[in-house]
Amino acid sequence: MKIKNDIFLKACRREKTERTPVWIMRQAGRYLPEYRKIREKYDFLTMVKTPELAAEVTLQPVDIIGVDAAIIFSDILVIPEAMGLPYKMEEKIGPLFEKTISTREDIDALSAEGIAEKLSYVTSAVALAKKELAGRVPLIGFAGSPWTLLTYMVEGGGTKNFKKAKSFIFNAPEEAHLLLLKITEAVIQYLSAKIEAGIDAYQIFDSWGGVLSKRHYLEFSLPYIEKIIMTIKKQFDTPSIIFSKGANHSFKEMSETGASVIGVDWTTTLAEVRKITGGETAVQGNLDPITLFANDKVLEKEVEKTLADYGNGEGHIFNLGHGILPDVEPSKARLLVELVKEKSKKYHR
Amino acid sequence: MKIKNDIFLKACRREKTERTPVWIMRQAGRYLPEYRKIREKYDFLTMVKTPELAAEVTLQPVDIIGVDAAIIFSDILVIPEAMGLPYKMEEKIGPLFEKTISTREDIDALSAEGIAEKLSYVTSAVALAKKELAGRVPLIGFAGSPWTLLTYMVEGGGTKNFKKAKSFIFNAPEEAHLLLLKITEAVIQYLSAKIEAGIDAYQIFDSWGGVLSKRHYLEFSLPYIEKIIMTIKKQFDTPSIIFSKGANHSFKEMSETGASVIGVDWTTTLAEVRKITGGETAVQGNLDPITLFANDKVLEKEVEKTLADYGNGEGHIFNLGHGILPDVEPSKARLLVELVKEKSKKYHR
Repeated sequence: MKIKNDIFLKACRREKTERTPVWIMRQAGRYLPEYRKIREKYDFLTMVKTPELAAEVTLQPVDIIGVDAAIIFSDILVIPEAMGLPYKMEEKIGPLFEKTISTREDIDALSAEGIAEKLSYVTSAVALAKKELAGRVPLIGFAGSPWTLLTYMVEGGGTKNFKKAKSFIFNAPEEAHLLLLKITEAVIQYLSAKIEAGIDAYQIFDSWGGVLSKRHYLEFSLPYIEKIIMTIKKQFDTPSIIFSKGANHSFKEMSETGASVIGVDWTTTLAEVRKITGGETAVQGNLDPITLFANDKVLEKEVEKTLADYGNGEGHIFNLGHGILPDVEPSKARLLVELVKEKSKKYHR
Repeated sequence: MKIKNDIFLKACRREKTERTPVWIMRQAGRYLPEYRKIREKYDFLTMVKTPELAAEVTLQPVDIIGVDAAIIFSDILVIPEAMGLPYKMEEKIGPLFEKTISTREDIDALSAEGIAEKLSYVTSAVALAKKELAGRVPLIGFAGSPWTLLTYMVEGGGTKNFKKAKSFIFNAPEEAHLLLLKITEAVIQYLSAKIEAGIDAYQIFDSWGGVLSKRHYLEFSLPYIEKIIMTIKKQFDTPSIIFSKGANHSFKEMSETGASVIGVDWTTTLAEVRKITGGETAVQGNLDPITLFANDKVLEKEVEKTLADYGNGEGHIFNLGHGILPDVEPSKARLLVELVKEKSKKYHR
């Protein structure tokens, strides 16, 4: 089905658009009363695992906020679960795994087989969301990066200082690489299945890439992201987005992976990234999510500064520099989207 | 009194030394059994406010770990308290303020007068520590940066996303600047009094400089750090260290403040900082604190890589890229110091 509003996909390919496309990380989420209404009835993982519910909340921000792309409602931790590590989501704590990984035997016990079948609830949600979108805007799929998934599998949940995960790469680098490779295989199967189910682009969330030194990022995170992108490229021409939050030392190396888009947080300037990558890659970002608590005038000024920071021409996808917070007023998110749509035209003449 | 081992001070001034000096952020802290023994009897703030106790734990890492500088045991939040905002330190939570700042009236009610008198327990601790050090190594003093102190004063404690502090600078920038200026005045008095009491260098901990966009960092954080350094420079030639953790976008601007040393975390490379600042500023850092959980062989390799990263010549002060964690084995910290002492000689020929 032809996509009516395809400026997000055009921007991924640095093609001419009339304005800058905009979507918001975590746009299908708790800040929307319509989402909370469903969430009251079902827990988070039930929503993730029920295609009808996942598809429904995926579409909400398209209708309510007016974004230029939908992103399938899901969770990055479905991959560790499919590999053999079930988890639960604890209120106010976050994900908790029953088992964690620390030895070679633990890694051997994980399976990277039949991932697409095990995660058919995601591909069903994708197919359903695509049908309900009816070509209005593209649908983005996503996966966690191998390094980011490793941190949860080794730590057993969220962490402040990544002591276990980093100790693992320091003290057992061979096992770490073995585990990263196994996760990479699973992610490739998963993203390929999602592409076949209908996603139009995919983002790799390397939420914890930025906690590593540059040397370790280039050894334990980026090569596995690159392997995913290169492998998928052999079969599909689906645009890819890398978002290694905080890994602001390696934009050049990210652009050399063959990714279509580099996502950046608000602590870097878009002009700087554009310069470093030589304009060979599109750039996504990077308004500080807290700007959505500023008054309307300040929000407008900050949107304008972000657009001006990227400057004239193609290849900018507007987004926040991290996920939208649960206590943002939906009207502010809507205003943000309207402002980007209106103020960005002059950069595309 | 002449300082016997003054290589830390020489490195601050980029003068010739025989090896690279080393100290550790939070070196007087919970990882030391000798510290915990005192901490069992007194709470954290009693230790901060009792010169004999503060001096005692200040000296511990000099004796036990063998560092090339002591840093006075204290807390950055003594400044907000002296200005009129008392706080308590809650176990496993952190600092909690009774009152917070949100209006101009709140700011007007703060006092930047008589800071040295109000914080005489710190200057007494400095004098005592200097006496007990007996010239073995230099003594470092410190203060929080105005922006970092503002975050605690506005948030009322620690925070995950800095929503209140950032909303304050977005929605009330004039008040924010007023508050920052008032804190700056207090910090200048405080550091001047500490210098008169005997500290040989000072570090400004801008622990939260890195949560701001570059534009906001250059408006709300760095100018106030610069004002502190410039004002103190008129009266004293005491070396200064800026540590804006994570503000890796602005090393050039930091070096232009007139600071002697730039502290960097482990997510940047020392070679890069040295290049950006043109070697005009000394550089402090930057081993990932988690490296102290690696085995001895890996620790040695990582120390060597950090030294090689800075390369030949003067102006490197070895440190972690953030504070040492409470569950590090003291023997690992001692090994780190020994390794730096031994492995760094070849870079100073």
